[in-house]
Amino acid sequence: MIYYDNSATTRPCDEVRDLVTEQLASDLFGNPGSLHKLGVAADKEYKRVTASVASILGAKPDEIFFTSCGSESANTAIRGFVSRNKRSGSKIISTRTEHKATLEVLSLLEKEGYEVVYISVGRDGKPDLDQIRENIADCSLMCFTHVNNETGAILPLEDIVSIRNTLNRKCAIYLDCVQSLGKLAIDLGKMGVEMASFSGHKIHGIKGVGVLYVKNNTRIDPLILGGGQQKGMRSGTESLLLASSFEAALSAAVKAREEAYKNIREINSYLRDELAKRGNIILSPDDALPFVLNCSFRGFQSETMLHCLEIYDIFVSTVSACSSKAKKVSYVLLEYGIDRMIASNAVRLSFSRENTMEEAEEFIKTVDEIYAKYLVG
Amino acid sequence: MIYYDNSATTRPCDEVRDLVTEQLASDLFGNPGSLHKLGVAADKEYKRVTASVASILGAKPDEIFFTSCGSESANTAIRGFVSRNKRSGSKIISTRTEHKATLEVLSLLEKEGYEVVYISVGRDGKPDLDQIRENIADCSLMCFTHVNNETGAILPLEDIVSIRNTLNRKCAIYLDCVQSLGKLAIDLGKMGVEMASFSGHKIHGIKGVGVLYVKNNTRIDPLILGGGQQKGMRSGTESLLLASSFEAALSAAVKAREEAYKNIREINSYLRDELAKRGNIILSPDDALPFVLNCSFRGFQSETMLHCLEIYDIFVSTVSACSSKAKKVSYVLLEYGIDRMIASNAVRLSFSRENTMEEAEEFIKTVDEIYAKYLVG
Repeated sequence: MIYYDNSATTRPCDEVRDLVTEQLASDLFGNPGSLHKLGVAADKEYKRVTASVASILGAKPDEIFFTSCGSESANTAIRGFVSRNKRSGSKIISTRTEHKATLEVLSLLEKEGYEVVYISVGRDGKPDLDQIRENIADCSLMCFTHVNNETGAILPLEDIVSIRNTLNRKCAIYLDCVQSLGKLAIDLGKMGVEMASFSGHKIHGIKGVGVLYVKNNTRIDPLILGGGQQKGMRSGTESLLLASSFEAALSAAVKAREEAYKNIREINSYLRDELAKRGNIILSPDDALPFVLNCSFRGFQSETMLHCLEIYDIFVSTVSACSSKAKKVSYVLLEYGIDRMIASNAVRLSFSRENTMEEAEEFIKTVDEIYAKYLVG
Repeated sequence: MIYYDNSATTRPCDEVRDLVTEQLASDLFGNPGSLHKLGVAADKEYKRVTASVASILGAKPDEIFFTSCGSESANTAIRGFVSRNKRSGSKIISTRTEHKATLEVLSLLEKEGYEVVYISVGRDGKPDLDQIRENIADCSLMCFTHVNNETGAILPLEDIVSIRNTLNRKCAIYLDCVQSLGKLAIDLGKMGVEMASFSGHKIHGIKGVGVLYVKNNTRIDPLILGGGQQKGMRSGTESLLLASSFEAALSAAVKAREEAYKNIREINSYLRDELAKRGNIILSPDDALPFVLNCSFRGFQSETMLHCLEIYDIFVSTVSACSSKAKKVSYVLLEYGIDRMIASNAVRLSFSRENTMEEAEEFIKTVDEIYAKYLVG
């Protein structure tokens, strides 16, 4: 099997599997809210795990909140911020290439009367900085993605933070870090963003756990109300198991990061060259994160190529898994200004540290075979 | 160890542990939204699990949604209903003995202009049916709890549904079934409620998964927006692992239910008698669910008794774990009209199918020892 769909989800790594199996057999099942020893033990471990995640991400422990997924983190950050900071104004800056969790929340806010300015992005996926400059003066919140899940395009975060710091220090930044986590260096204390979202299952963790970062002194309303767990920011009994699984996945990802980056850069470079040689069009920007390679295959519709590849146990995706059932052409690629015909042949290869150069060579061989066998004319 | 804090949380059962360990080692890690075989396999299993949970609960598969916890289910049901059904009016009926997830959402809605009528409850924990009758005519939603988590009081659901059916068929009912699941028979198709919430970790499942039931033709807005998973009702990548763990826990609980009920009824009856004999006051109503036994211990403040018992590795709780850190007297017991002095000595024993009569005898022996050793005067 060659699994090239790691931007959709990843296989839980050994560290996570071991942790889960071990903890499920332990006495660490108490409710962290309980006053007795079992509760206290669970609470202590939950705090240790929170502090560890915070430390790895360059945040303070009280800036880290566990959620159920990246989407919940995004919903909480954006809705929570605007609901709590009504006096900061009703103008939001974003792009049309965000993840659906952001776009759907923004769309709801527009219905509620907020003004959302969607900044154009170029063929390289980067938002037009001049448009940001023109709109930031009365803007309360900017929502961007660190690494685009379909193309790997990296946000020029430093430029954007610098514009914000120069032109409107009060404008908060929410950053979707779901695809950058474990791949780019993340140091929240230095990045200049007020809120950020993360997901466990994109870094060989478990589906059903995410993290929300909220910088100290940034106030947001909670999305889920109740017993006041996690300092009232996210009610619901804390899941030590899921939080621990996130920490295990994160630790393993960060430990392997530099080596994996080097390895995947080589694989990406090899695949780019080989695919381009064969007349296919690389849609990922040149300076994209190497973990995502979007390629338009000559003569094959996206889904046809996907199904041809899966005959050989090679797993790729067309658009984002969150949108794939709709079977439409990627809204992200169209927004980049890519021709609809070319975009409709786009396939996303997305890698993880588990992928090897041998797989990449096998992939190219298979593509050749598919062209020889299935391409008519 | 004697674990009598099962209303706070339970130990994951063998069926759940085995399922999780097995699935984590399998190829069932695909994103159910992916179009390739791994995605299709995950999606198929997710649908099977959903249908199985629906079938056990007497619901249709498209009425069942997986969430991250009971609190998320409660938030989604109540906020989602009022947001989607604005034309049904702005009056809600509930009680002050609900779980914090319900009370906090209702409090928020009151700030937003909704009128919430809190029906009085009697010493038996049951809401005053006459007050419901008086208020139901222009009411759009009623929020009740099937079994109270602090006392075991059972809601007279049939009476309430009958009042609704007679006086205002348009009024929807949301039922918190977190504590009744696996203990009382649940047949959603026949219960007459429009929405219901459930939690995995109260039935020997994993913390981090819950279920929301929404009856067909009842329309509610989603709380978490994004990729449109679960028919748009709950975005975020579906966690097959957590959904499967819920199904495993539910299947095991339902299979063991009748036998467990009989067993716990005997244990409860024994403990009631022995505790009362010793001059303690049973606060749970006579007709409460036997899985919860709330008792006011003569001469001991709640927390003192809790800590005395934990010396002997016996784990109980004072108030609900969701409120315990606040160290206040139970708002539920005060609402029942129980004297504050008596309520401040209240300890909740909450059982599961794993508890035995031998433990109960050991518990009473320990209580005697604690009185002999620690009670001054």
